[in-house]
Amino acid sequence: MNPESFFSKDIKPALKNDPPGEWMPVIPDGCIRLSSGYPDPELIPVQDLKNSVLKLLEEEKDLPLHYIGSKKVKDLKATLQLLMSDRSMVVASENIMITSGACQAIDLIARVLLDDETVVALESPTYMEALEIFQNYTKHFISIEVDKHGLRTDILEEALEERRKNGEKLPKVLYTIPTFQNPTGTTMTEERREHVMRLADEYDFLVIEDDAYGELYFNQDTSPLKAKMRRNESRVLYIGSLSKVVAPGLRIGWVAAEKEFIQALSWFKKDLDHPFSQASVSQFLHDTNWEVRYTILRKVYRAKCSLMLAELEKYMPDSVSWYVPQGGYFVWVKVPGTDTSKLLEKAAAEGVSYVPGKYFFLNQEDGLEYLRLSFSYASESDITEGVKRLGKVIQSAVSD
Amino acid sequence: MNPESFFSKDIKPALKNDPPGEWMPVIPDGCIRLSSGYPDPELIPVQDLKNSVLKLLEEEKDLPLHYIGSKKVKDLKATLQLLMSDRSMVVASENIMITSGACQAIDLIARVLLDDETVVALESPTYMEALEIFQNYTKHFISIEVDKHGLRTDILEEALEERRKNGEKLPKVLYTIPTFQNPTGTTMTEERREHVMRLADEYDFLVIEDDAYGELYFNQDTSPLKAKMRRNESRVLYIGSLSKVVAPGLRIGWVAAEKEFIQALSWFKKDLDHPFSQASVSQFLHDTNWEVRYTILRKVYRAKCSLMLAELEKYMPDSVSWYVPQGGYFVWVKVPGTDTSKLLEKAAAEGVSYVPGKYFFLNQEDGLEYLRLSFSYASESDITEGVKRLGKVIQSAVSD
Repeated sequence: MNPESFFSKDIKPALKNDPPGEWMPVIPDGCIRLSSGYPDPELIPVQDLKNSVLKLLEEEKDLPLHYIGSKKVKDLKATLQLLMSDRSMVVASENIMITSGACQAIDLIARVLLDDETVVALESPTYMEALEIFQNYTKHFISIEVDKHGLRTDILEEALEERRKNGEKLPKVLYTIPTFQNPTGTTMTEERREHVMRLADEYDFLVIEDDAYGELYFNQDTSPLKAKMRRNESRVLYIGSLSKVVAPGLRIGWVAAEKEFIQALSWFKKDLDHPFSQASVSQFLHDTNWEVRYTILRKVYRAKCSLMLAELEKYMPDSVSWYVPQGGYFVWVKVPGTDTSKLLEKAAAEGVSYVPGKYFFLNQEDGLEYLRLSFSYASESDITEGVKRLGKVIQSAVSD
Repeated sequence: MNPESFFSKDIKPALKNDPPGEWMPVIPDGCIRLSSGYPDPELIPVQDLKNSVLKLLEEEKDLPLHYIGSKKVKDLKATLQLLMSDRSMVVASENIMITSGACQAIDLIARVLLDDETVVALESPTYMEALEIFQNYTKHFISIEVDKHGLRTDILEEALEERRKNGEKLPKVLYTIPTFQNPTGTTMTEERREHVMRLADEYDFLVIEDDAYGELYFNQDTSPLKAKMRRNESRVLYIGSLSKVVAPGLRIGWVAAEKEFIQALSWFKKDLDHPFSQASVSQFLHDTNWEVRYTILRKVYRAKCSLMLAELEKYMPDSVSWYVPQGGYFVWVKVPGTDTSKLLEKAAAEGVSYVPGKYFFLNQEDGLEYLRLSFSYASESDITEGVKRLGKVIQSAVSD
């Protein structure tokens, strides 16, 4: 019996890609993890969650442990609607589907929209999990550069014009993280946001807006592409997540989109719901003053980001540069002339880790000189020590 | 913007089927729910789970709330291995993947094995969620009758012979619930189990063994198809679930299969893991004497089943018949000459519900005279009153 001989013809192309999680750097224990895009452990609300679970099970007893029946699960959707309306997004309950984190949302959207002939427009660089997922469905991509003001919509427009002129297939979707992008930390300007939405109408494509970091602004909120002020926000399939603002281990994400999309997504979402997890989070959001919570998160991450930027100034050679983020988790660093994936081993030997830039690019060659640092997970003293160690490693690589 | 115009060509055939959950009967509040395949609410371990979650968060603090890092999540696999080895299934850790319930397991297996040309052999009747899932991938099925001794392997063999003789495509997989089947409650005899495994070798197909009810035997355990005693158990992709023995709202299922299959499944499982839910269950299984727990479950469900059978004897007309289950949740009832889907409205008006048989058949016409009762969810007094009400409804339908 040869297992491979039983595989579906549909999955065979995907299995030729790198295996999922290939980008996950192998990091020795004890390293300072500037690679981890995880929340600050101190900001995980362990005690509050414990109390909320207790309260939930006292109030609802066995209900959240059945397939259906928990009122708190229903309340969760209402709370998400509230969170969205605070950021100018007005959606009805039928326009929301709760998912197991943002990844399941991306995968379900891909399953519903993509086939092996679909062209997908992507930011370059972009979130590596999304890259993996889209490549499970299609091989046709348009990669559009990101600069310090986000997606280069001028290049996108040129690419679209060119394709139209040549009679080439146009993209059906654009996947973007317009706010505090992973990995670059950059934010699309309002001008570019307007531009991208105009292009969506003109070239008839949908926009998958991944907004996992949107709440974590340092100074001011940015209007999502899904915001009601845009006359064509119905083209946007919005992905939200509580992973960065509550806790990733609860696996709560969601999609907000036109109801035809939500219905089609439900068709293929075969893990049903996660009542216990959803009801626990629902209770937690009910018990917590999340405006206060979010304000604290913004303050802490802003301080950690400032610290990381200051340490980069201090320890990096002059040739090294980075974008200054306005929110989120990441600093994107360019080390000219250095293959950061080769350098990782040395960095790990010095006790510091990062994610090599190449994993965020469809064409990995384009990312050799970049690396992603995260200020979210490491403590302040670890950020200082980690950047210092990394500075040493890069200094010696650059002077080689 | 027309949402449908953006759908993938791959999902369009599936969208022509009945929408998912179509079988879910609409039941007025206050009905006695003999339709619900849920655990007995009294057997949901609310207090114990509450204590386990407390203990977990005290011991591991933020760890189970991150993406990775909880030791308890790792322990869960070891516990599942133990549960399996108690039932003669010997599998290594790399042969197990934890899923969001059995449904996600079925969907992932379908995604990895099926394409639009694949032939799937199914029991008739079978689990409606599985029917829905498989029909999202292919239109080619062989439906094989189930009788009181489970799958009619003689008919399966004839069908395979016939296909081979005619040069028709042979099935790549057989999906079966050999033990306490949903919906018939029947169990495949040991003779037929041997037969089906011989056929798997001879005709080179895989067996998807859905064993969601296997632990819930009334008198004696039945050897799964995955048991080590079978020389070709590697052909079996085994699906387990804690939904029926702990609580469905925690969404813990798993697949045990050859590692090539597990690797391919991981490729497409894009909801990552559910650390909080998995760690909570892991802690619960650690804190609980589950042998004692399972013994209690078996005793309670045996008593409730006996009661339901006795009430059926008392209240059903002579023409009505049913199988006597040796475990599980269900009694499968035949009401000759009656369309049970039409009768449901009358039953609901009398305050009792069931699932009409047709939803368990690929060809729904084959199921018109059947209905599924569940003795798991309703209390003993509700079982008595529910069967009595149903008897009245059926009596009047039969004498019409």
